[in-house]
Amino acid sequence: MQNELLLMMPGPVPMPERVRNAMSRQAINHRGKEFGGVYADCVRVLKALFGTENDLFVLSGSGTAGMEAAIANVGLDQTIVSLVNGKFGERLAEISGRYGTSVAIESEWGHPYDLEVLAEALENGAGIVTMVHNETSAGILNPAAEVGRLARKHDALFVMDGITSIGGEHVACDEWGADIAIVGSQKCLAAPAGLSAVSVSERAWERLSEKRPYYLDLKAYRKAGSKDPMETPYTPAVPLFFAFREACLIAEEEGIENRIARHRKLADAVRAAAKEWGLPLLPVSDNLHSPSNTVTAIQYPDGVSDGDLRGSLKKMGIEIAGGQDRLKGKIFRIGTMGATGPSEVLATVAAVQGTLKRLGYSFDGDGVSAATEVLV
Amino acid sequence: MQNELLLMMPGPVPMPERVRNAMSRQAINHRGKEFGGVYADCVRVLKALFGTENDLFVLSGSGTAGMEAAIANVGLDQTIVSLVNGKFGERLAEISGRYGTSVAIESEWGHPYDLEVLAEALENGAGIVTMVHNETSAGILNPAAEVGRLARKHDALFVMDGITSIGGEHVACDEWGADIAIVGSQKCLAAPAGLSAVSVSERAWERLSEKRPYYLDLKAYRKAGSKDPMETPYTPAVPLFFAFREACLIAEEEGIENRIARHRKLADAVRAAAKEWGLPLLPVSDNLHSPSNTVTAIQYPDGVSDGDLRGSLKKMGIEIAGGQDRLKGKIFRIGTMGATGPSEVLATVAAVQGTLKRLGYSFDGDGVSAATEVLV
Repeated sequence: MQNELLLMMPGPVPMPERVRNAMSRQAINHRGKEFGGVYADCVRVLKALFGTENDLFVLSGSGTAGMEAAIANVGLDQTIVSLVNGKFGERLAEISGRYGTSVAIESEWGHPYDLEVLAEALENGAGIVTMVHNETSAGILNPAAEVGRLARKHDALFVMDGITSIGGEHVACDEWGADIAIVGSQKCLAAPAGLSAVSVSERAWERLSEKRPYYLDLKAYRKAGSKDPMETPYTPAVPLFFAFREACLIAEEEGIENRIARHRKLADAVRAAAKEWGLPLLPVSDNLHSPSNTVTAIQYPDGVSDGDLRGSLKKMGIEIAGGQDRLKGKIFRIGTMGATGPSEVLATVAAVQGTLKRLGYSFDGDGVSAATEVLV
Repeated sequence: MQNELLLMMPGPVPMPERVRNAMSRQAINHRGKEFGGVYADCVRVLKALFGTENDLFVLSGSGTAGMEAAIANVGLDQTIVSLVNGKFGERLAEISGRYGTSVAIESEWGHPYDLEVLAEALENGAGIVTMVHNETSAGILNPAAEVGRLARKHDALFVMDGITSIGGEHVACDEWGADIAIVGSQKCLAAPAGLSAVSVSERAWERLSEKRPYYLDLKAYRKAGSKDPMETPYTPAVPLFFAFREACLIAEEEGIENRIARHRKLADAVRAAAKEWGLPLLPVSDNLHSPSNTVTAIQYPDGVSDGDLRGSLKKMGIEIAGGQDRLKGKIFRIGTMGATGPSEVLATVAAVQGTLKRLGYSFDGDGVSAATEVLV
């Protein structure tokens, strides 16, 4: 739309009208029945999307605040092993270093985790394992069930960053043994940026650090959350809660399985197009790792610059993501997250295909046809 | 309005339509020119309202997050003296205890600070002093200039919570030597809840703790804020920034002096009414402490219960605040913050006056006339 870029990035993503309009309401007192009901609606739907019966709280802070809450509440002076195959895995390792001893087990970005090294670290007594379920920086879906199994076997806590998977990908925190899991509001749930939600298992409560931060103190969230009506310990970002509730209700109405299937289908379409273009995905798959269904990371062909491709798309009203940090200029990333559907994906595939050709990259296939085949 | 309570509390407060409508926009990428411009507008206006040329950042977290950022970035293992004459003074002391050695200098709630004890603590080497400029729990305006002078004299950092004063009360951070000052979005600025802004002096930067939290790491805010276009280090709560910008522009258009005068006039009207009702204010004034101009704390007469007064007002569509913690049932509080004007104050004064009479409390004066006299 004129002056309104179509965001096809791995978050933020376009919000449904119903979500946006929920924010323009007048202020309400956040200690009262109405706010409590809004919060309770979010929690009910999020528990289903997390696949958990654990406690769950919504924090007025973005996904990074949720990551820090996860680590800061249990990690003080602990040895924390972080599996790293992208930027957000690095961030968890960095946050861990602010509270305990951070041990990063690094793979190349987009390459499988080294679970043997993890097993070793756990043998050596690490108390916490962190991983990013869906690593958007590299477009890879990492093996949460397997990491959870290893953590449980060695009696370590398992912190799972589900910021860009929960709400769009199959997640089963309780089955996988994810003691603390995190989601961000502006990703698969298509709500505005600024909130995160965190689930906390009984095992995590038992291992709460004695000294915890204040704003992100999960014990304070538990106390306020158990009131009737539910509250947050400190002033919440009320308009974002109104919007988040709508986004959660939309997910509930769509149905979890339908929502996951939709995300997968949209990503399938992008992958089918990339194949026609002869462009390999960045992530390296094995029997435990697979390409993300919420963002597709595609390698640039020689001779096509990131600025040219993404700049051209922007002129046509579409914003896709480039690579971050060490992947800058090497990949482009197309988000298929939240509320987007076939028309947005097709517009994006068409724009990329046309631009690749215009920029002198030639290929035989037809990504638009391949994507249409998947989406129709 | 039907189904829309008029919030006459010390925040959240009613938002102007222009502020509310700013939130319903579609998502944008927060790393780009448009967001940078929004952020820059906020910073420009806020610096004027803070009375500072120091660095200033907007955090995606409520006032409590701002308080914690202030303390956590400079307070690790320091002795932190907190002046306490209300709930938020207590909160600063509590946060201080999470990072350093917290020494609370307590007065009765609503009573003047004991600055002799402060001077003594500073002689004994305390490195940081915290105070709440406008203590809403007790309706008292505390002496920032004087505390700043003492802190500077003893080379201590001065952390000033201006959450409910900045934007509605005269504040001069640089003149007073407030090294770190904080404001909340949903108070005198009449924006939605969920953001806070923090200013940081050169002296504070020089004394930054080596180990800092992550989401609230001010050094990361400085780095991102110095980019062109301006950024935040982690995903900001974008719709709240859109709204906050409008709120800041409204304050700029009104003019700082006009805005402060308006707040004072509204509070004068409430105080004039309370006098007619024969009800004393809670705060005890002296040559350094005075009643707040953004919230008026009034003592209940015998025989009038908090539930009855505030319940009746709610039925008439007006929400005022009660006392918190130890002041529960002893006071009621009328906010005069943000965008409210004479009509809202008169409605509130009329509702309180009528209800006090209906509940059997008799007095000779006429608060409505007295308030009208001030407001006309």
